[in-house]
Order: sequence, then C-alpha cells, then structure tokens
Amino acid sequence: MLVVQKYGGTSVADAERIRHVAGRVVKRVRAGDQVVVVVSAMGNTTDELIDLALSITPEPDPRELDILLSTGEQMSIALVAMALRALGQEAVGLTGQQAGIYTRAQYGAGRIARVQADRVREELAKGRVPIIAGFQGITEDAEIVTLGRGASDTTAVALAVALGADRCENCKDVEGVYTADPRLVPTARRLTDITYEEMLELATQGSQVMHNRAVELASVYDLPILVTSSMVDDVPGTLIHGGPELEERNRVRGIAHDTDVAKITLRHVPDKPGIAADIFEPLAEHGVSVDTIVQNASERNLTDLTFTLSRKDLKRAESLMPEICERVGAAGFASDANLGKVSIVGVGIQTAQGYAARMFRTLSAAGINIELISTSEIRLTCIIDAERVVDAVRLLHDAFELETAEAQD
Amino acid sequence: MLVVQKYGGTSVADAERIRHVAGRVVKRVRAGDQVVVVVSAMGNTTDELIDLALSITPEPDPRELDILLSTGEQMSIALVAMALRALGQEAVGLTGQQAGIYTRAQYGAGRIARVQADRVREELAKGRVPIIAGFQGITEDAEIVTLGRGASDTTAVALAVALGADRCENCKDVEGVYTADPRLVPTARRLTDITYEEMLELATQGSQVMHNRAVELASVYDLPILVTSSMVDDVPGTLIHGGPELEERNRVRGIAHDTDVAKITLRHVPDKPGIAADIFEPLAEHGVSVDTIVQNASERNLTDLTFTLSRKDLKRAESLMPEICERVGAAGFASDANLGKVSIVGVGIQTAQGYAARMFRTLSAAGINIELISTSEIRLTCIIDAERVVDAVRLLHDAFELETAEAQD
Repeated sequence: MLVVQKYGGTSVADAERIRHVAGRVVKRVRAGDQVVVVVSAMGNTTDELIDLALSITPEPDPRELDILLSTGEQMSIALVAMALRALGQEAVGLTGQQAGIYTRAQYGAGRIARVQADRVREELAKGRVPIIAGFQGITEDAEIVTLGRGASDTTAVALAVALGADRCENCKDVEGVYTADPRLVPTARRLTDITYEEMLELATQGSQVMHNRAVELASVYDLPILVTSSMVDDVPGTLIHGGPELEERNRVRGIAHDTDVAKITLRHVPDKPGIAADIFEPLAEHGVSVDTIVQNASERNLTDLTFTLSRKDLKRAESLMPEICERVGAAGFASDANLGKVSIVGVGIQTAQGYAARMFRTLSAAGINIELISTSEIRLTCIIDAERVVDAVRLLHDAFELETAEAQD
Repeated sequence: MLVVQKYGGTSVADAERIRHVAGRVVKRVRAGDQVVVVVSAMGNTTDELIDLALSITPEPDPRELDILLSTGEQMSIALVAMALRALGQEAVGLTGQQAGIYTRAQYGAGRIARVQADRVREELAKGRVPIIAGFQGITEDAEIVTLGRGASDTTAVALAVALGADRCENCKDVEGVYTADPRLVPTARRLTDITYEEMLELATQGSQVMHNRAVELASVYDLPILVTSSMVDDVPGTLIHGGPELEERNRVRGIAHDTDVAKITLRHVPDKPGIAADIFEPLAEHGVSVDTIVQNASERNLTDLTFTLSRKDLKRAESLMPEICERVGAAGFASDANLGKVSIVGVGIQTAQGYAARMFRTLSAAGINIELISTSEIRLTCIIDAERVVDAVRLLHDAFELETAEAQD
C-alpha cells in the first residue's frame, strides 16, 4: 500500500531518534509498502528560531520570519534522508517547494492551495523514499510561507490526498487517541477507531493528538488517518475515519478538557439587532479570539451575554469592555479568569437520551458548579472552575464507563 | 552608486553584529546609494551543521548535505532583513533560488552558471534592500547546490556583474589587504589598491582575504572589489582592480605565506613521454591535490621529480607511491612533511632585475635553506622549512621595504 507517514518534532529530536525513524521506514519499505515521509523540525528548533528572531527585533517581519522558520524542517528532511541512505535505502529530501506544496501568501498562517505532486510521484517511481518538509509551502511567486504551528499534520494529509495514498499515519510519542488524557485518568483506554467528527471535537476541546485542519481535510476526502507510536513498534494505534456504522453507536467516546478558560459577562444588554456585532467586532479587531458565546434568556428586553476566551487574551478584552458597554448600553461587565472546560464527545449523544442528564448529575454530585453549557452535534461541554477540571474528567470517565474497552468498540 | 556588499560569517555571528551590519547598510542607503547585500551563515553555523550530519552518518549524501548546509545562509538573510526593517528600511531576504543564482548540479562544489537577477532588480526598484544568501544556488531542476567553502564572495561578485553594479564591497573583520599578515609582521601596511593578478597570487599563497574564484570572476568582467572592514566605520580599505598603470610599477606588493606544505620527490625517473600522467592521474583519482611540480635537470635520461601537496594528503599520497614508482620505473621516493612557502607578489617582478636575487640573498643570509623554487608572471615562491616561514616573511617584508607606504602606492 501507499502510505504517508508523518513524524513530529519529538520523533526526530536528535540523531539517535532520526536513525530510529529511518529504521522504521526502511522496515516498512522492505515489507512491500510505498512510503512518503513528512517531518517537522527537530525538537524545540522552531521555538529556538523564534527566540533568535526576537533577539533581533521584538516584532519580526512575518515574511522574513517564515524564511527563518522554514529552515527547521529543511534541516530535518536532509538528516532523515541521509539516515535512510546510510541504511542503503534510496531517499530524497524535498522542501515544501520541491514537493509542490503551493499556498497563498499569508505569512505564518498559510493555507495549502494545491499540491503539485509530480516530483514526489517520480521519486516514488524510482524506488526512492521522498522525505518532505512539513509546515511549509511556496506561493506562485516563489515566496516561502509557513502554515502555522502543528500544520505538518496538514501537509501529510494534503500529500496523501494528492497522491491518492491508502492512508496517512501520524507517528507520535503517544500510542493513539485515548478516552481521556492518560496522565489524568490512569484507566483511560486507547480507542481502536474514532470518526473525524469525534476527533475534531476532542482536539478542539484540548486533546492535542492531531491538528484540526488535518482532520477536517482528511474528512473532506475521506482519507483514513492512523494515529500511532513512532517509538514503540507494532502498536495498533487509533484509526480516524468516517465509517457510517459509527454514526449509530450513540456512545460517549472520550472526555476532553482544557484548563485555560476565562469568561466575561455583559450585564443587562438591551436586546436589539446588531448587538453581537457591536460587541465582537472590536474584540476581533484587537486580536481577541472568542470561543463559546451564550446569551441568557431575555427579561424585559434586557439580556445577559457571556463569552469565553483564552486566559492570555483576558487583559486585552477587559481593557476594551468599558467602551463596548457604553456603545451597546450594557449595565456593566464581570470577568472570571480561573475557569476550565470538560466535554463528553461522541456521535449521536445530542439526540440520545440521558447523556446530558448523566453528565450534569455526575458533576453536581461532586459539588462542581456548572458556569456555562455549550453543545454541538456530537459534544456537550460544561465550563467549570479550573481547579475542578481534573476531578471532573476522572468522574465522567467513570460515569460513562470508558475504561471497559470491549463494551465500547 | 549601485553596490553589492558581502558580509562574512564573523560579521553576522550574533544578534548584535547583525544589527550593526543593518545600521551600516541603512546609513549607506540614506547617503543615496543602492545597496544589495550578500551574507554568509552566522559564525560557525556551517561547521555545526556538518557535525550534525556526521552525527547521523560518517558519509552524508552530498545532495542532502547541501539541503542542510543551505539553511545556514537562509537563516542569515531572514535575520538581516528583519534587522533592516526594524530600522525602518524596507528589505527582503532572498534565497539563492529567489535571487536567481543558477548552478550546475555539482553538490558541495557548484559553479554559478548564470544569474537571473530580475527579482533583485524589481526589489531595488521598489526601494528595498535585497539580502541574498551567499554560497548557494539552484539547478534548472530546482535542486539546492552549495558552491564550496568561502564561495559567498563569488555569489557577491556574480550578482554585481549581473546587476552592472559599480563595485563589490567585501566587508570583513580585517581592514583591507596587507603587505603581509599583520599578525606576523607588525609593520605590515594596508595596500590602497592591488591588481586582480596580484590578489590572486596573494590569495593562492595563503592570504585568505578573498575567495580566488571571486577575484577571477571580477577580473574577467573588470569589476572593482573594495576589501574593507565591517566593524570599523570609514576605513578606506583596499581596492582590487585591473588598472593598466599598475602594470608598470615593477614593485613587490606583498608577502604571502603558507605553513602547510609537504613534498614528495621521486628519484631517478626515466624521462619519457607520459611519465607525468602516470604519476599524477592516480593521485588525482584518490583525491590528492598537487600544488607545485618541479622536474630537475635530466641526467643520462633520468630525472628527479618533486611535487608539493597539503600535509593532510601526504599519508594517502605516500601509500600510492610504491605502485607509482614501479609503474614509471623510479628508483624510489622521499617525502618531507614539515615545509612551508613564502612568496613575493607584484606585477612585473618576473621581468624586472634583481627581485629574485634579493629574495634568495635575504633567505640565505638568515641561514634559511631553499628546498624548491616556483614562479609565475607576478610571483616568486620559495619552499622552505616550515619553522622558518615566520622569520622569512618578516625578513622579506623588511628587505623589500614594504613598511614605507608613500614610496609604494
């Protein structure tokens, strides 16, 4: 089969690990598969390069920063290709440009526009393993653009789609996708498989196994992704796919959490059209990214409006609030910096009976107060006190019996 | 005027020096000049990248090594461009590829085939300072190729020629070209100007001020090069050019030296056609680079043949000698590892009276034995004991009165 394997920064952090990755790839090729490899920068290289830029100027030019940052992955492709050749396997390192990863010129946050995979196909046809730089592409004007943190996952999926690969394999320092963070919940269990939608909700809610854009892209083209270990051999991993039979399961598949949540509530806002724009446009203009928005039941045409945001944006948002309150005629605002969220994720849980009730009951039995509730098709999220997030994850993992593997998969 | 400035690794070794370089460039632009900048990798980056490659495999693939090494200059262009922008000067970092430096695919030792300078011209026309990666180019197939150690000088000259620049400026940690190495000869004097030919002979003989290929290229296109300081402002530097008036000077312009010389002598070689090929072809095939070759006067059709080489190649050459001696019918060979050379350089000295005699007399008066003599149009070299090289440089600097500036230039 034709497979695109992606190795992250931890998996290629030093010479020894690079040789280990090369050994894995060679084994796979000798077993008869065609392998394309996508790599990230070694270990903390990207952070070190950012620090170097900041030592020159506090606000590095985005175009030049991308030229600088793209060297990290360029180093990795050369070293991994050398390691493969040293094992007698023909291999060829390809920059984003050489691999035909075309993007729009949005420095630091490029999106892949198209993949011109001719060169990669040629190298495969010659029996070589193409080693491709993740996280980077090139505009039609030959400008180097990086795709944003974690976007090597997206490079791998885009290449797999362009090549018509059988699947993408995300080789990581974890062994798959778990029912909850194994560091918090000792009984957390690796899932055999998970749908794209479930994976997206788990990722958005703080479980950083796969980059969201990569999962979305795979979902559009129905490309299966295997999340597996780059360290331990013969780990079955977790297959992310879109099998329709899963839609029927109506089960909680995992618990996601995030301890970085702040909230702002505007009190007694006159409930009239255009209010939301008046509140959220100035925030967006000042780079404040808002997560959940909840508007409480209106009373005598006055409403309370609450939104959550990342803790790092709270100070900036607070400084904008007096002007916003005045413009929309709110009575005032209150903020809380020490919140977190916990979510249950699973296809069908919104329409199925009893899941929401069981979640609320579990939290209240433990004296955990719910500040805010938000839902999607396949997710139910409660905003709670940051200090109770770990308790909540453990209690919900028990309450939904996620430790019992056979019953679930 | 339009000028191409080249800054070497020492001049961009850290953030502070990079900001210093940016300041110099901005000053120059504000004074009304158009400036194109060529940079090397920061400090020891290239050596560190080579060590990284060697930690993966003792014999890194040359193509992959070039992908790795080219990241060094790519980092520099981004950082220097950022530093310029931080000073309010529009600037744009360009990789070898973006700057249109096309080479043939000889990995690690590429030669510039052509410079497609359209992009550089466009950026200049927009009032931006193009910051270009030295030492690297791209083949017609978009393969990254490095040009060999020290070749950023060549990049700068090639760009200056392609752009029709008024001159190339090599900004270094020295203040120009000296009559001898100032670390050895305290009275050594900076030359105001020097011809291409003289510079070539000084460089070949161990004075590493300019990369030879760069001087040759400048000579072909009659492009003036100013060697000047990147550290100290308002240093007049040394102008390398091809003025015909200099041909008439008949003066010794500088003393070059090299302490890394070994020699091998083949004794009693039958003097017949094809002998030289039989000796030097096997050496070249084994990567031994031969410098001077001297054949002593033939006696009864038997000749002694001596050649010099770098000390690091001596062991390899010695191991090949028994077979070579047998093939050419030589009586045997002798080698000496501890030699050096000292040269006087100046246009016209070969045809002028008395220079050779004065050189030989100076050395013999100090008890320095001459092992071998070789000459070019503008150079006279003596191979001597390595331990006496420093003495010889000082004595010759005195003997040819190089410390007296006014008399010379």
